[in-house]
Amino acid sequence: MQTLAITDGQVLTPDATVIEADVLIDTTAGTILEIGPDLEGDESLEAAGCLVTPGFVNGHTHVSMTLLRGYADDKPLGAWLSEDIWPVEAALTPEDIRIGAELGVLEFIKAGVTAFADMYFEVPEIVDVVDRAGVRARLGRGVVTVGKDEDTAQADAQQSLDVAREFDGAADGRVSTAFMPHSLTTVSTDVFEEFVPQVREAGIPIHYHANESRDEVDPIVDEHGLRPLEFADEYGLLEESDFIAHGVHVDETEIELLAERGTGVIHCPASNMKLASGMAPVQAMRDAGVTVGLGTDGAASNNDLSMLDEARDAAMLGKLAADDASAVPAPAVADMLTAETADAIGLEGGRLEAGAPADLAVIDFEVPHLTPVHDPVSHLTYAASAADVRHTVCDGQVLMRDRVVQTLEEAAIRDRASQQAVALLERAEASD
Amino acid sequence: MQTLAITDGQVLTPDATVIEADVLIDTTAGTILEIGPDLEGDESLEAAGCLVTPGFVNGHTHVSMTLLRGYADDKPLGAWLSEDIWPVEAALTPEDIRIGAELGVLEFIKAGVTAFADMYFEVPEIVDVVDRAGVRARLGRGVVTVGKDEDTAQADAQQSLDVAREFDGAADGRVSTAFMPHSLTTVSTDVFEEFVPQVREAGIPIHYHANESRDEVDPIVDEHGLRPLEFADEYGLLEESDFIAHGVHVDETEIELLAERGTGVIHCPASNMKLASGMAPVQAMRDAGVTVGLGTDGAASNNDLSMLDEARDAAMLGKLAADDASAVPAPAVADMLTAETADAIGLEGGRLEAGAPADLAVIDFEVPHLTPVHDPVSHLTYAASAADVRHTVCDGQVLMRDRVVQTLEEAAIRDRASQQAVALLERAEASD
Repeated sequence: MQTLAITDGQVLTPDATVIEADVLIDTTAGTILEIGPDLEGDESLEAAGCLVTPGFVNGHTHVSMTLLRGYADDKPLGAWLSEDIWPVEAALTPEDIRIGAELGVLEFIKAGVTAFADMYFEVPEIVDVVDRAGVRARLGRGVVTVGKDEDTAQADAQQSLDVAREFDGAADGRVSTAFMPHSLTTVSTDVFEEFVPQVREAGIPIHYHANESRDEVDPIVDEHGLRPLEFADEYGLLEESDFIAHGVHVDETEIELLAERGTGVIHCPASNMKLASGMAPVQAMRDAGVTVGLGTDGAASNNDLSMLDEARDAAMLGKLAADDASAVPAPAVADMLTAETADAIGLEGGRLEAGAPADLAVIDFEVPHLTPVHDPVSHLTYAASAADVRHTVCDGQVLMRDRVVQTLEEAAIRDRASQQAVALLERAEASD
Repeated sequence: MQTLAITDGQVLTPDATVIEADVLIDTTAGTILEIGPDLEGDESLEAAGCLVTPGFVNGHTHVSMTLLRGYADDKPLGAWLSEDIWPVEAALTPEDIRIGAELGVLEFIKAGVTAFADMYFEVPEIVDVVDRAGVRARLGRGVVTVGKDEDTAQADAQQSLDVAREFDGAADGRVSTAFMPHSLTTVSTDVFEEFVPQVREAGIPIHYHANESRDEVDPIVDEHGLRPLEFADEYGLLEESDFIAHGVHVDETEIELLAERGTGVIHCPASNMKLASGMAPVQAMRDAGVTVGLGTDGAASNNDLSMLDEARDAAMLGKLAADDASAVPAPAVADMLTAETADAIGLEGGRLEAGAPADLAVIDFEVPHLTPVHDPVSHLTYAASAADVRHTVCDGQVLMRDRVVQTLEEAAIRDRASQQAVALLERAEASD
């Protein structure tokens, strides 16, 4: 057994208190051995003046969309997708997707994110990046059937199921998978009827966008006479292993349904603001017992992948949504940033305790904007930013040491991504 | 004449376009001499791979409140002020205020902020910090008269006027001043009647909180039968030189009044979200021709002083408020971050052009979260953060070079502020 000690830091415990302690890690098993005073390891990471937190968990993203960061802003969801995003996505190659994923995962590691859930295409490329980078992920292939004939639609869904079966457990167990219909309005009921039973038989979770904008609610109410999540429940899409992205426009009935079923919600406050989708009732969902995690969504609607920005946004927007400054307080947000999102997407981690996966971030508090320290959990939520992350560890492996990423080559990835983004837009324009 | 050249950067021009150019500065006069290709100076600052922007302008803050950063979160405005903030503020000494201001101004310089408007107490201490740090500011002493007898109230207001007269033009002209009644509901009409004419005679602007929460609107409507800004207009508080903080709950009549009078509004989106105050109608105000700037408010309700966070928040919240994802677009936000706030608070600057004050920030774009660069103005608004600021220049003087602040001692200020924050809370508790 090889060990790694994180020394002299302040450690954020699962009950949102902070203790002075070292963290000893079994790097072979990738788990935390002990949290306590005066621990020594074969190797060590210095954490004096730092807060040691669970690695942040990004519950909903499209990581390869980093190539489209800042490409088209300030437009409503519908027009943005149909005029800007989908035409370019139609030109995406597996190479684009790999290079975009490398850039996104590089940004994750720099920002202390150790795990994420991703819906996109060319999943094997993303599996490969996750494997090399050393992070943890739940990956799936998005299915969109609108405008496709039945055979193509079925083939698409079959591919999403096949990918989920094939890659579950990849990257030494760091990759899990899900079946990922894009949303309740962009996938035909035939596909749900045909595939959900097979997905359940394979024991695979389902992840999809739901109730993001009014356009994802009204057509379902009009056509089926049901709220979208009642409709989802009818088609077997609300199991405990499942998680939806957004949940902005959910009513009381749907909140109760989510709580009863144990289905997780990934709140994406930055994306919901940027696309003017609305304000999710986060405090109301939490009060009802719904598991609410956090996600950045894709970089094109954010425009960064920092979960610390998302945490601040969640605390801020949650108060406005509830019309109550005491709603979504800092300790709740710290939980959403880590354990609650891990729970929602069904990955281990998110808690610093003996036996848990050694996934953690070390945040440098010795900076002006985190001075003085009345309450470290407040700083984590409201004032810390990605650049304050000093070390990142996942599965016991040091992914970033003193702000230098160890598993990916930062400068080469930036150059490659810059060139590839230009090439992608040229290709998209040529095929227009 | 001594000169400084900012070389090889991308320069953000006043019309929100970006050009490849050098910037040549007359450091003696503190002004920009020329923007163009191949300029050489006696000294230089390297800006390859960087965006050169006007220094950011923070239009409303209470800079010494950094000592209370994260001290009391997740409470509504009224309770937060009366239970947490005011009792501690009652124990503040001039030394607390100086040390808090040092920490805040240090954070400004690190975040590319070169100018700010501040309402607080013990203004001479803040003048001294501004002088030493090399930034630009419009400073004033807050006046609160509720719960005070008439003589004390008058003496308080007199002090605010005296301070404004005494320090206008201090720090080699980098300090301007204003008369600063706290708000329309915390200052008696007697004081407005007595002092506004004297303030006008002295040619001094007026700055105050207005329409921040419903509690700042309803009592005025009930008592005077007027909207708060109609009431302000009656008392002569809506001149072109004046600027209000917040303006969240303003109706159409008030928006028109602001546009007609030319009074500026400082939008503080983070504070408005954190205190659940509401959403200011920023796009509606801009459409009506109101000058809308940006401010962080105090660190206790934010909790950092990064104007880049505020820019992102303004773009995001502005869209939600307008229910329109095309509202408050990136170029508008870039303007609010710089020129429009400078205009609102009546300071020169905010524009990179020959003859303008040499106040600027150099932002490092060679980082993963700003890759690729489809649109630098989008990145400035949505993805850049304080840590990306590499150099800060004000009045031709280099305040930060390669992330090392030149005019203030960072480590000493952090230590002093940490100790002073503890001492302040002990003092406040002892006097309880």
